[in-house]
Order: sequence, then C-alpha cells, then structure tokens
Amino acid sequence: MLYSKLIGKTKKQFPKDEESLNAQLLIKAGFIQKEMAGVYVFLPLGLHVLNNIINIVREEMNNIDGQEILLSALQNPEVWKKSGRWDNETLDVWFKTQLKNGSELGLGTTHEEPLANLLSERIQSYKDLPLYVYQFQTKFRNETRARSGLIRTREFIMKDLYSFNKTNEELDEFYETAKDSYVKIFERAGIGDKTFLTFASGGSFSKYSHEFQTICTAGEDTIYLDRNKKIAINKEVYTDEVIKDLGLKKEDLEEVSAVEVGNIFKQGTRFSEPLGLKFTDENGVEKPVVMGAYGIGPSRLMATIVEINHDDKGIIWPKSVSPFNAHLVSLNTQADGVYEKLNSAGIEVLFDDRENVTAGEKLSDADLIGITNRIIVSKNTGDGVELKSRDSD
Amino acid sequence: MLYSKLIGKTKKQFPKDEESLNAQLLIKAGFIQKEMAGVYVFLPLGLHVLNNIINIVREEMNNIDGQEILLSALQNPEVWKKSGRWDNETLDVWFKTQLKNGSELGLGTTHEEPLANLLSERIQSYKDLPLYVYQFQTKFRNETRARSGLIRTREFIMKDLYSFNKTNEELDEFYETAKDSYVKIFERAGIGDKTFLTFASGGSFSKYSHEFQTICTAGEDTIYLDRNKKIAINKEVYTDEVIKDLGLKKEDLEEVSAVEVGNIFKQGTRFSEPLGLKFTDENGVEKPVVMGAYGIGPSRLMATIVEINHDDKGIIWPKSVSPFNAHLVSLNTQADGVYEKLNSAGIEVLFDDRENVTAGEKLSDADLIGITNRIIVSKNTGDGVELKSRDSD
Repeated sequence: MLYSKLIGKTKKQFPKDEESLNAQLLIKAGFIQKEMAGVYVFLPLGLHVLNNIINIVREEMNNIDGQEILLSALQNPEVWKKSGRWDNETLDVWFKTQLKNGSELGLGTTHEEPLANLLSERIQSYKDLPLYVYQFQTKFRNETRARSGLIRTREFIMKDLYSFNKTNEELDEFYETAKDSYVKIFERAGIGDKTFLTFASGGSFSKYSHEFQTICTAGEDTIYLDRNKKIAINKEVYTDEVIKDLGLKKEDLEEVSAVEVGNIFKQGTRFSEPLGLKFTDENGVEKPVVMGAYGIGPSRLMATIVEINHDDKGIIWPKSVSPFNAHLVSLNTQADGVYEKLNSAGIEVLFDDRENVTAGEKLSDADLIGITNRIIVSKNTGDGVELKSRDSD
Repeated sequence: MLYSKLIGKTKKQFPKDEESLNAQLLIKAGFIQKEMAGVYVFLPLGLHVLNNIINIVREEMNNIDGQEILLSALQNPEVWKKSGRWDNETLDVWFKTQLKNGSELGLGTTHEEPLANLLSERIQSYKDLPLYVYQFQTKFRNETRARSGLIRTREFIMKDLYSFNKTNEELDEFYETAKDSYVKIFERAGIGDKTFLTFASGGSFSKYSHEFQTICTAGEDTIYLDRNKKIAINKEVYTDEVIKDLGLKKEDLEEVSAVEVGNIFKQGTRFSEPLGLKFTDENGVEKPVVMGAYGIGPSRLMATIVEINHDDKGIIWPKSVSPFNAHLVSLNTQADGVYEKLNSAGIEVLFDDRENVTAGEKLSDADLIGITNRIIVSKNTGDGVELKSRDSD
C-alpha cells in the first residue's frame, strides 16, 4: 500500500472531542474516525488491525470446535419476551425500531435468545450435543454515555461463542477449555502479561462468572489483583467472604483499574428453559440444554492494546496485530525497487512514498502509526536497507 | 467438517412459509434459517458460500485499487439532512431508532452521505484524487414486503464501492473499469452467461445507470434483452427513444424476468455538493468531487446462483463458491482415513460420517446440498475412491 494513496493519513493534532487516549491516538494516526459519540468508522489501517484480531480469535474458536454462523441484528420481540428480556427495564441498552406496519423490532445487544430459539428445532437428542457456536456480529447497545473511545461504543463487532451441553459437568469441562482458549487469545494479541482472570458476579446459576481484565489506567473497572497467583476479584463481588472462598488474602491484593477484554459465563438453563431448548437423554428423559456464553469485543481489544502499548511518539503494535508487516520509509532517495521486492515476497508493506516531505516528518509518522517493523532506505544505506523495530532504538 | 456435528443439517420438508425457491432450497439444505420475514441467519454451510462470494468480490475490488473500510450502521440525521434524504418520504426504506436522550438515529440503507462527509476533511487537493473506497457492511432496509428469500431482505451485507474523481472524464474512465470488474465477478461466481449489462434510469446527472441483470424466473425486474449484443434495457426506461439511442431494434429484444445482481451509477456532484466534498484543482480552483457508486449484495448473488443452478434433487453450486471443496460420502464402510488424508492435503471436506443412515439418504442429502465434487468410498471402491461432480452422472 502506498501511503500517498491511503485514506486515513495521520493528522497533525489530537482530536479535541475525545477524552480517551485510545481514540486520540487511533484518530490522530489515521486508524479510525468518529462518526458520532460512541460510533466509529474503521479506515484501512484500523480495519487491518481489527481483522488481524478477528483472525486470531477465529482460529482459537475453531481450535475448540466452534462452528461459525451469522445471526441477525434485527430481533423479533416474541423471542425475547419468552426470557423476559424484551423490556427496556430488564435489558437497559436496547435500541428499538419499527417495521412500516408498526411492529416493534429490536437491535441485538447479545444473542442467547435467538440462538437458543434457532437451535430448539435442531437439537433433539443427546447425540446432537455438545455443540459450540460462535459468530462475529455487529451488536448495538444504547449506552447512556459513550466514552472511553473504542472501549465502550454503541455499535461494535463482537465475537460471541455459546456452548450447549448435556450436563453441568460437561459444561464445566468446556468452560475450562474456553478459559484456556481465552488465555491464548490474549497472549497472541500481545496483552497476555497484563491480563488476569477475574472473578465476577455469577447470577443465579453459578457462583461466579469470569472476566479477563487487562490492567490499564483507562479501565472502567476496579479489580483486586493477586499478582503472584495471577487472579483477581472484581470490585462488584469484593467481600471478605469471597476473598476467603478463593483462598486469597486481603493483604496480597492490589487495587488496580482494568478493562474487561473478555468474559465467560455459565448460564445453565436460564435461557434454554424459557426458549424450549431441550434434548432427550440416553434414557429417553427430556432435559433442558445447559448453556454458557463467551464474549470478546475485537475493537475493545484493539483499544486496550493501544492503551497499554504506546509511548509519547505514538502506538507500538504487537507484531501479531500490526496493520502491515513492515513500514518502508524512503529518505531522500528512491525505494520503489525495495517496495516491489517486498510485495513479490508476499510481505505486506506500507510504503511512505511521499515526496516533498521531510525525513523527520516521515519518521515521526511511522512512530505514530506504530507498525512493528520499519525498513529505511536512504543515501546512507547504499544498496542495503536499515531495519528497526518500533519498540527499539 | 463432520456432517454428524454440523449445525444446519438438511430437513425432510421444504419450509411452509417460503414462496421463493432460493429460500426453500437453502433452508431445506441447511444453509440458512429464517429469523422473521426478510431476515435470515447464515448457518455454517451458508456462511461458507457467503464468504466465498465476498472473497471473490474483495479480490476484484482490490484489483481496481479499492481501499476497504468499514462504516457504521448507526446514522447521524444531520449528515443526511444536508442531502435531503433524511425524510422517510424521500428515502422510503429507513429504519429509525433513538438514543436514550430522545435523539433520532437512522440505520444505514446506503452510505453516500456518511462517506462524502468523512472524506470532506481528508480530501483537499487534486493530489488526493482519484480515490476508490469500498466496504462489506450490513445494510438495513425497511421493505414494505419482504419476499423472494435472500433476493430482497430487510438486513443484508452489501459491498458498496464509491469512486471519487476530479472530472467527469476521469469518472467515465473508472466507470468502465468498474463495469469490467463486475463482469469478472459474475463470471467467477458462475452466473456470467446469464448476466447482462442493462440500461436503467440515470437520475439527474447521467442519462443512464447500469444494472447487471441475471435472467431468472424469480426475478422482480423485467428487461428487454438483445442476446446477440448482450445488452438489455430495464422496463423502467424501455421507450422507442431509448431503443434508438442505444442502437437497438425492437424486433431483436426479448422480454425476460431478471434479478438485479449489481448496479453502477454515476452520481456526479449530487452528494459531494451538499456534503461539502471539494478539492482544489491544479489551478487553485475549488471544485466539487465527482462521485460514482457501485453495489453488489453477496447474499442476493447467492440466492440468484441457487435460482439458476439447481435441479429437482437440490442445489448445484459453481465450484468457485461451493461451501466445501468436496463432499466425502462413506457408504457402509469406513472413510476416516480418506478424510484425514484430504484434510492434511488442505482440501476442505464435508464428511458424511453418519452411521445408521442409508446410502440412499446420504446421496440424496449430497444432491440437496450441492457441493461441486463428491468423493464416494464404498465396498465397491476397494482401496480407491469414486469421484463424481454434482452436475454429472
């Protein structure tokens, strides 16, 4: 890609209407643009990163036998009335709309109900289970206040995986598999060392749910972290009883701000019962399917990566999600030959081919954009090139 | 993929609530499921086909210098008021919704306005042009009556490309490039021989727009086709004057039903002027950018492929969009070894591993699903396999 042609060049200034660092950096560096409060557009660089993250998540979902589908955003009220979540009081982030005949529709904020409903005619016997289904789908959430840049938006792609099991024991086993899968995803995305399994409120079916919280000053959550044991407690369930229950000690726990980058939740029969999602077991007995839900927001993950991987010059992308493999910078000389060679070798390159731009400007734009590997061609490098990674001198 | 584990197995019966053949076949064969009128869910087989189509379109868009971005579904009324298309009377397929503070938002039906608005701060000089921008993005259209299965839905992914040029001549040149690109896409998708360039109404800026119409009994459009010249006229502009203008003769034109699988449109300054999308030319003169729009709905294309490629046993996918490379069927014997070999060779296989299912059932399911290549392992084939393509005996 030629930088001179790129939609989404860097800007000289930070945007004035953004409080959050991730939005400030991503907008200044040309990755995203604000459409309105809580709604962002992904420009080519931003879409590259988003897709890199999505691909990591997709690979790990396939590795644990997830089958990818695509549900709809438009939601049928009848399905949600069965679980009691159609009311705006129960689920307070609904966007609602209407057909021309006046019938109300919702825009999906999550998809337990439609998926349980869909599977209720496809799951009959214990032979149809277990089943693991996921999607990358646009969610709409009518947040009262959208802030924090890409961390909390009104429209975003979410990876939501749902598990369908015969028994609690089978769910427990898959839950551990999903937990391991999430650990791998955050490691691969370059935030593994700052991301901790966190105990959160569990609802009526299970004592706890689990979040993956990444330590970050921009985080909206407060967690109490035992760095040695690598586990934390969300403030919402931080009591002496829970601390004891988890075998932790108050004096080992550190209060930190964190971003919830993933969450996993045993839902039991909370949705399968009202939606009529049943199966017949080995003995011919009809039972409700046991469910779990597992979410990751790729754009929130992208924002979190930026929040914890930057310096005063700009973003520092982990290699696995870097928008291009390399940033080729030509300083007062031609580098077209190098660009062509890299392209033919299948290396995805952003080539800063601009003329009439100083070396200093090109290098500072490269710092701002933060591609992992930089290749510099200048009069000093002769027939060779200079290689540098963004996070080294 | 093991068929026994697949979400979205074939059904015994056609759905009762579908008039259209594409929806009937796709639902019976396990590709899609109806969520409500005009809204469908893509099951794994359906998502495979949809992604195959998307990948063909993406490759061709990149080949003509398209840059991929992702705009938002939620739309800001202020942007649309500038072009006069916020009113439901002007654009009659709006879905509208509200923020909690009562402000109205729209759900995007098309994206000229937000994209022109976005680029108005990024395009300044003639050096920033031409620019070609596309996306695969979910559109919402409040259709009065949703029928025709995946041909006309209320929610669907659309590829919309927009061109931004300095002059009408430059637009004319790109328009021909885009036309050629569309011809390639429909050829690659296996419907090239039934798809014809069709002259349709042009609006205020250009005499005609162009549609790509695929001959198909399910088509909602009527076109007048000159099979020798391979061009057609949409009924909406079918007059003696237009026939003459295009150098056609009434007696050479055949009236046929067709599905509009793509459309390309010179928009000129219809959107750039009200949205303030201007550039400064070589002489320092400020001018509005000249725009064009180019749409393809991958799910409509999928439906059209089904409408024209099936027999009384089921779907016959063209190889380029087939959900899997091969359908492996074991008849009263083991085929696990063959499955593993195919997988290791990187061949994507749907393996009908079901036990207690007759050979007849397996073969008729394979006919219904319509994967291009079939590999049969039976006692008769010994150490070998039998190869068959779906469209041959």
